[in-house]
Amino acid sequence: MSEPIFKRLTLIGLGLIGSSLARRAMQHPTGARRIAGEIVACDSSGLACDRVRVLGIADRVEPDATLAVRDADCVVLCVPVGALGDVAARIMPHLAPGAILSDVGSTKQSMLREIEPILRADVALVPGHPLAGTEYSGPDAGFSTLFENRWCLLTPPEGTDPGAVARVAAMWNECGARSREMDAAHHDRVLAIVSHLPHLLAFTICGTADDLADETRSEVLEFAATGFRDFTRIAASDPVMWRDIFLNNREALLEMLARFTEDAQAMARAIRWGDDAFIVDRIERGRAIRRSLIELNQA
Amino acid sequence: MSEPIFKRLTLIGLGLIGSSLARRAMQHPTGARRIAGEIVACDSSGLACDRVRVLGIADRVEPDATLAVRDADCVVLCVPVGALGDVAARIMPHLAPGAILSDVGSTKQSMLREIEPILRADVALVPGHPLAGTEYSGPDAGFSTLFENRWCLLTPPEGTDPGAVARVAAMWNECGARSREMDAAHHDRVLAIVSHLPHLLAFTICGTADDLADETRSEVLEFAATGFRDFTRIAASDPVMWRDIFLNNREALLEMLARFTEDAQAMARAIRWGDDAFIVDRIERGRAIRRSLIELNQA
Repeated sequence: MSEPIFKRLTLIGLGLIGSSLARRAMQHPTGARRIAGEIVACDSSGLACDRVRVLGIADRVEPDATLAVRDADCVVLCVPVGALGDVAARIMPHLAPGAILSDVGSTKQSMLREIEPILRADVALVPGHPLAGTEYSGPDAGFSTLFENRWCLLTPPEGTDPGAVARVAAMWNECGARSREMDAAHHDRVLAIVSHLPHLLAFTICGTADDLADETRSEVLEFAATGFRDFTRIAASDPVMWRDIFLNNREALLEMLARFTEDAQAMARAIRWGDDAFIVDRIERGRAIRRSLIELNQA
Repeated sequence: MSEPIFKRLTLIGLGLIGSSLARRAMQHPTGARRIAGEIVACDSSGLACDRVRVLGIADRVEPDATLAVRDADCVVLCVPVGALGDVAARIMPHLAPGAILSDVGSTKQSMLREIEPILRADVALVPGHPLAGTEYSGPDAGFSTLFENRWCLLTPPEGTDPGAVARVAAMWNECGARSREMDAAHHDRVLAIVSHLPHLLAFTICGTADDLADETRSEVLEFAATGFRDFTRIAASDPVMWRDIFLNNREALLEMLARFTEDAQAMARAIRWGDDAFIVDRIERGRAIRRSLIELNQA
């Protein structure tokens, strides 16, 4: 029986992602733990800590982050990206020499901007982003199979110990995810279009509907056909998490929104002037993208 | 055993909606047909006619629309809304006296605009719109339960025989749908926000992604996270049908798009200037709408 990847893994933030990782790490698929010998959970919310205890998804719950990280060979920050800098600053003096510091945030340049300046020389920084989630949040929303067949993108800064990167990748592989290294700026551009912009559009259309005159508004709810209903599912996600994502990836997101707005205006113009060919071309491109996704098994 | 609602029901256009209605009408839930004694199918595509014959979802296939409507007490046009006027003009002289003419199109003002001027005095016009569909099309895509627990909106012009409206409503009720009468202009505004605008946004974001530089574009496909993937499903729908919907509901759709664009720009400004409260308020509204939908059992 081989040793687990980490002796002690500390997870800070037991929301959907943190609690899912905790659940998976607690499993013994072959009779022995594969990810970590001991899992320590830490959350600033007393309620979340209580739930983690009741659910039994960690070996130990330690509400004080400075104590929770003690002697851990890996610490994964699973807090909203807006809280990463503060939490990292608080735990930095207490990390074990040689420890790996990772995260699961959806924006990676902001993570590096906040943490690289305060990083200790004897700590390896391996930022990570598992592309997985649901519209639910909190310790009860997690499940151990959340990461199966998903990607986890890693954006280690230049010079990071390759051994540390490999161990974080191995952790995600144990969770059933594939991992890939990527430049942080490139990550932020790709995520802006595949995830952040769709969420911005979904939140916005719900607001637009909410502003309609009362009679129409109530019928929007009553007759929510396929399109709108699908958008509201995306829009049901956690507000603080998404505010942080928008603010921490503002450049890439605003650029993608500007491109999108130009395209939407071009579509509006084609509709106003009856430009059949333009409209059909745009719709065909949507279908082609969908077909590519199905071929890539991402649909 | 009571008589079926119609003696002979003719369906013109056997795509997703028409073929689903045909399948449902052919069933004998209580040992006898409830919707129509005879179902006649008509499609301008020889391929579609062949499929309907093979699938056995009509009593008779008649490719010539002028013959297909003969002696039918109800004719439902299930063609893209852009084709409604032409088909109606062709069949009008051949409709039986007292026949009901209905449709399933997603835009209702344009339907009335095209058909009312050519309507015979002895034919009852009962425009309908079942709020049901998938991203698939064609006779093979239909299924008999498509309309269960869905709405069918009816927008009869003033003065339409209430008995004719009641029979069309009864047909949709037999399909498992609830029906509601509504003014055509109001219908078009509600559908613009719940269905047409979401589809326009979904088609557009696929196009925006398709225009990205090659490296990013391929990774958009590879890492299509929840948000983008959900949009592409909406965007997979039939191009001709959607072109027609956009062009035939242009006023309401362009108005909703203009409101949406203002709201998206306000969100962009809040992100640029870090207006936390505005961003969270918009996201909270999305969640509130989602909760209302769940309470209304529409999610």
